[in-house]
Amino acid sequence: MRALMLLGDKQLELTEIDPPPPPAAGEVQVRVKAVALNYLDVWGFRGMAFAKRKMPLVVGVEASGEIAAVGADVTTFTPGQGVVMYGALTCGTCKACRSGRDNLCENVGGIMGFHVDGFARDLINLPARLVIPVPAGVSATDAACAPIGFATVQHMLFDNAKLEPGETVLVHAGGSGIGTAAILMAKQIGCTVITTVGDDAKAEKAKALGADHVINYKTDRFEGVTRKLTQKKGVDVVFEHVGADTFNGSLLCLKRGGRLVTCGATSGPSVTFNLMQLFQQQYRIIGSFGATMKNIAESLDKMAAGLKPVIDTTVPLAEFERGLERLAGRQVFGKVVVTF
Amino acid sequence: MRALMLLGDKQLELTEIDPPPPPAAGEVQVRVKAVALNYLDVWGFRGMAFAKRKMPLVVGVEASGEIAAVGADVTTFTPGQGVVMYGALTCGTCKACRSGRDNLCENVGGIMGFHVDGFARDLINLPARLVIPVPAGVSATDAACAPIGFATVQHMLFDNAKLEPGETVLVHAGGSGIGTAAILMAKQIGCTVITTVGDDAKAEKAKALGADHVINYKTDRFEGVTRKLTQKKGVDVVFEHVGADTFNGSLLCLKRGGRLVTCGATSGPSVTFNLMQLFQQQYRIIGSFGATMKNIAESLDKMAAGLKPVIDTTVPLAEFERGLERLAGRQVFGKVVVTF
Amino acid sequence: MRALMLLGDKQLELTEIDPPPPPAAGEVQVRVKAVALNYLDVWGFRGMAFAKRKMPLVVGVEASGEIAAVGADVTTFTPGQGVVMYGALTCGTCKACRSGRDNLCENVGGIMGFHVDGFARDLINLPARLVIPVPAGVSATDAACAPIGFATVQHMLFDNAKLEPGETVLVHAGGSGIGTAAILMAKQIGCTVITTVGDDAKAEKAKALGADHVINYKTDRFEGVTRKLTQKKGVDVVFEHVGADTFNGSLLCLKRGGRLVTCGATSGPSVTFNLMQLFQQQYRIIGSFGATMKNIAESLDKMAAGLKPVIDTTVPLAEFERGLERLAGRQVFGKVVVTF
Amino acid sequence: MRALMLLGDKQLELTEIDPPPPPAAGEVQVRVKAVALNYLDVWGFRGMAFAKRKMPLVVGVEASGEIAAVGADVTTFTPGQGVVMYGALTCGTCKACRSGRDNLCENVGGIMGFHVDGFARDLINLPARLVIPVPAGVSATDAACAPIGFATVQHMLFDNAKLEPGETVLVHAGGSGIGTAAILMAKQIGCTVITTVGDDAKAEKAKALGADHVINYKTDRFEGVTRKLTQKKGVDVVFEHVGADTFNGSLLCLKRGGRLVTCGATSGPSVTFNLMQLFQQQYRIIGSFGATMKNIAESLDKMAAGLKPVIDTTVPLAEFERGLERLAGRQVFGKVVVTF
Ligand SMILES: [Zn+2]
Ligand SMILES: [Zn+2]
Ligand SMILES: [Zn+2]
Ligand SMILES: [Zn+2]
Repeated sequence: MRALMLLGDKQLELTEIDPPPPPAAGEVQVRVKAVALNYLDVWGFRGMAFAKRKMPLVVGVEASGEIAAVGADVTTFTPGQGVVMYGALTCGTCKACRSGRDNLCENVGGIMGFHVDGFARDLINLPARLVIPVPAGVSATDAACAPIGFATVQHMLFDNAKLEPGETVLVHAGGSGIGTAAILMAKQIGCTVITTVGDDAKAEKAKALGADHVINYKTDRFEGVTRKLTQKKGVDVVFEHVGADTFNGSLLCLKRGGRLVTCGATSGPSVTFNLMQLFQQQYRIIGSFGATMKNIAESLDKMAAGLKPVIDTTVPLAEFERGLERLAGRQVFGKVVVTF
Repeated sequence: MRALMLLGDKQLELTEIDPPPPPAAGEVQVRVKAVALNYLDVWGFRGMAFAKRKMPLVVGVEASGEIAAVGADVTTFTPGQGVVMYGALTCGTCKACRSGRDNLCENVGGIMGFHVDGFARDLINLPARLVIPVPAGVSATDAACAPIGFATVQHMLFDNAKLEPGETVLVHAGGSGIGTAAILMAKQIGCTVITTVGDDAKAEKAKALGADHVINYKTDRFEGVTRKLTQKKGVDVVFEHVGADTFNGSLLCLKRGGRLVTCGATSGPSVTFNLMQLFQQQYRIIGSFGATMKNIAESLDKMAAGLKPVIDTTVPLAEFERGLERLAGRQVFGKVVVTF
Repeated sequence: MRALMLLGDKQLELTEIDPPPPPAAGEVQVRVKAVALNYLDVWGFRGMAFAKRKMPLVVGVEASGEIAAVGADVTTFTPGQGVVMYGALTCGTCKACRSGRDNLCENVGGIMGFHVDGFARDLINLPARLVIPVPAGVSATDAACAPIGFATVQHMLFDNAKLEPGETVLVHAGGSGIGTAAILMAKQIGCTVITTVGDDAKAEKAKALGADHVINYKTDRFEGVTRKLTQKKGVDVVFEHVGADTFNGSLLCLKRGGRLVTCGATSGPSVTFNLMQLFQQQYRIIGSFGATMKNIAESLDKMAAGLKPVIDTTVPLAEFERGLERLAGRQVFGKVVVTF
Repeated sequence: MRALMLLGDKQLELTEIDPPPPPAAGEVQVRVKAVALNYLDVWGFRGMAFAKRKMPLVVGVEASGEIAAVGADVTTFTPGQGVVMYGALTCGTCKACRSGRDNLCENVGGIMGFHVDGFARDLINLPARLVIPVPAGVSATDAACAPIGFATVQHMLFDNAKLEPGETVLVHAGGSGIGTAAILMAKQIGCTVITTVGDDAKAEKAKALGADHVINYKTDRFEGVTRKLTQKKGVDVVFEHVGADTFNGSLLCLKRGGRLVTCGATSGPSVTFNLMQLFQQQYRIIGSFGATMKNIAESLDKMAAGLKPVIDTTVPLAEFERGLERLAGRQVFGKVVVTF
């Protein structure tokens, strides 16, 4: 069977490897159908990674598939059923795992496709508890965007920022994979969405997704426009993932009592800010990383209810690297998905 | 090894059975140290049960033990470690399980010791995910009261009734296993506790546990006393498990906006009540059943912090039936525990 | 100025009374623009009321208007501004009032238009703290449906039942004022809505509002259809206001762990139910009455964002009684509003 | 009557002024009994203030008293009743006020005793809605510590950090007014408390209050000791008010998923931190300012239930300045209260 291996920095190779053995008790075997790409793949590919891991490594951090076989004792899955996979090897027994707070697992065994072998292969065996059924009517390509793309946003906006209907949210980089998901999810519950993009073509697309106001951050300062759009009151929530370049501007956009939730720092991680502003304005700054299995199920439910992820490009497995280039480039709007 | 089997109604027999095989991958083998008794055992023994189950059946619904051996892939437990067991065979993969809402599992395989074989035996193999570590300093006897006795109360008072420090709670049957736990847990967070008991000896014991007011329901009407004690305002929360005899009186004890949480109906299940009272008084009536694994861990943490369960009696395994009699009798105050 | 007075059972009279004095410090004077009708008006008119009150009484329990004048110290309102009024004379100083839980005020002075004089008059003076601004773009007629019609539903579905996006809700009497609001609000956040109506014409209208499934309860048993529609799983939430006729059927429609929220019992208040079902199914039964000022503001925000109340009929003040007849009749779909 | 006026930087004068007129409708007149001191008083006295305000100014930001007279329409207070006062002139009509989120009022008229005249005078008239009754058994001296000292901590620990029983909290500056309150409140609900103090005498006192571990930050690095005490796991919550000197060390003390709540920056407000640490560790950084009226009522309830504030020193009104010196000095442990 095929597996896409990272041999070293910027060295991807599509190889033939032995298929896995039949699934053990408690396991399922999944035939992978689609892998969605993330910046994590780009960093892994380029070798910018700070992380402990050993090569060669099967890439692919986010994927969907269908059940190929089930091990003994597995009664909740049947062959042919559509599924997605949780991308971190959680222990399933610590207090966090037991509370459904999977992304706080105390004994996590690494991120699949980054620290340990990932999903870019034809077949994979996994504990059934890490596999989530896909509801009827959701395509494999869309489902592949649930475990990270949609679930991260679900976790940020609802578990963390506790976004409420009627509130206003500023979504940074509204053309990115998570930016597009944030626009869709915030609009669905009846929020006002302000978003930033880097060019006018994307501005049109963001509006078509439902964004109420789109700011081209190349030509306008987002802080000023946001404060104007909100009559100087500011927004309830800022959805951050840009980091150093926007962090203080984002705080300036917040209403008193507002919440900033962030899951990334693509422009750099080091920021200096003022504690007096923090407490006098009663801000909350919330760091978010990953998502829970519940968030993935919620994401799939939203897809089944009509909230389709924005797919920029699909490429076949052999062109994984071209997909990464598309993702890292300036034109991308939404997700890049690799099909099998 | 020993196992205590229920052969038919009121027929218990201590038998020798084969020990289990070595634990499979993902499993642990537990040496049982103590079994705590519950009304569920009494019903099971008497054969009042409405439930589907087949005899013979190993009894014991709530227990503690220590790890005897671990299967392949189990890294979070080590032999000799103290543990307790979740008493229902949850699937571990449904949405409820994944959210840490174990007692809402959609594919639960029955209650151990009641529908399927339970804990009253020397050794048992279980999936590691259903086993919870006991913190240092908690005895096997106390720990045996965590999975049902303490965790049910933790779930009722905090997950369900959302009891807050400073509130007033009426605890019915304050001398029962869960009643004593409810008094302790409510006092620990700074609540005022009113409780009912059936005789004056128990009244003294309930006061010694910290109850602020104790009502002998044989000599006084609890509704009247409670309304008097609260200057007619009523209590914030009623902890119910008596049922038909007390339900409407309990509603009368509630403050506007108050919550009644119930997990039982020992005096009968059928009640007639007034919807107009319900909505005009903005009451919440909350049915509670079982607990989550998180509640068990929380209970054990409370024990480690000094909240010791009230043990009425301990009996050896061979005298299980005498323990049941004690539990079903009028004198019992707290839990009855069977030791190995 | 005009005032519509209830002189005795079924005796309404449009009279001339003296206008109020200029508003005192802390007060505003409101020119009433529209009064929305509720079953409370019907009961008051018919004299079925159990309540303490004295005649004659200015009717009208739910209204919108505009600021006519402001008293000393009132800086947050300006003449001409659109407003709605909170319909109960809360104290503003008890713990409930201070927590924003206005409908639990410990010293409430009665419901306006029912116990004490209401809104069906040209001018009224009120404490500024009981008056809520109407956002731009919301008409007086729509706004008149916010204080009870929309806010009651906002409180029931979100504060009480904690309805979440993706859940399924059964809305009883989907053609009623609150039924239509419940359909709209549940759909807006992405829920699946099942609703009941009494004839096929209403079924069409309910579908047009967005209901996913409409049951004609005259021709089908709603319990059976609901269980079928949900593949026997049941719904997450039942929105009840029918009472005796539907209560037990509604419980049967609930998923394990489901919530029933109710604000009425038009078919009778006395129900008998089974506590064992309640706790084994882990149900929550929540009584709801009125709403908070925050709920009214949230309702107005939803209207401003496009969620328009369903208006069945508007009648002029002189035809208030005809409005009541329409409301109490079988054909009504949505709200009846009296204009000035 | 007496009033303590700030004439300019470091110029306090006890003067005679006219008593207020009888209370207007909706107002009460309060006879002040005790004023508790806060750093805000120190800053105001020294003139370090960045704030807009005009001299002379009656000082005193936190106080208790008793009702001297009530205006028309005020039925919830009676002369002689013990009360405390909310220290900011909120509007009572904005969405925040209506939700019980008083410290987010959109039209707040300034902090009394700092921006506008405060409580250090014999009599004061106030809107009844800003006055909170003191429960039986709480002395005027203790009650004076509720509006800021206790309520700020109540808001930080419970509304903001959502501290749960069984969690571990690091309280900075455990000998300060809010530090002592934080130790007491966290212990009351069953938390483990680690605290820092500046000398060994205070260490003894902090232990006597119930702190489980006390670190002398002069002789030990608090980060290292805290990580050691928690077996490198870190604490669930850090209670911060020191600022620049401790902020990054405090983050290092946090468990993954932990919360840092802060209300001050006595050592300086500017901090540089790492966003990658923030989101990878899933931290929450929460700025807190002031408290709600509900928090004040909750604080008084805790005092009535036995949680007495730690009073370092009481001084008579004429020695207000000596009280400020004591508060600003190194020896203070707990609150300084000025009596009338
Ligand atoms: Zn884990
Ligand atoms: Zn399950
Ligand atoms: Zn009130
Ligand atoms: Zn306000």
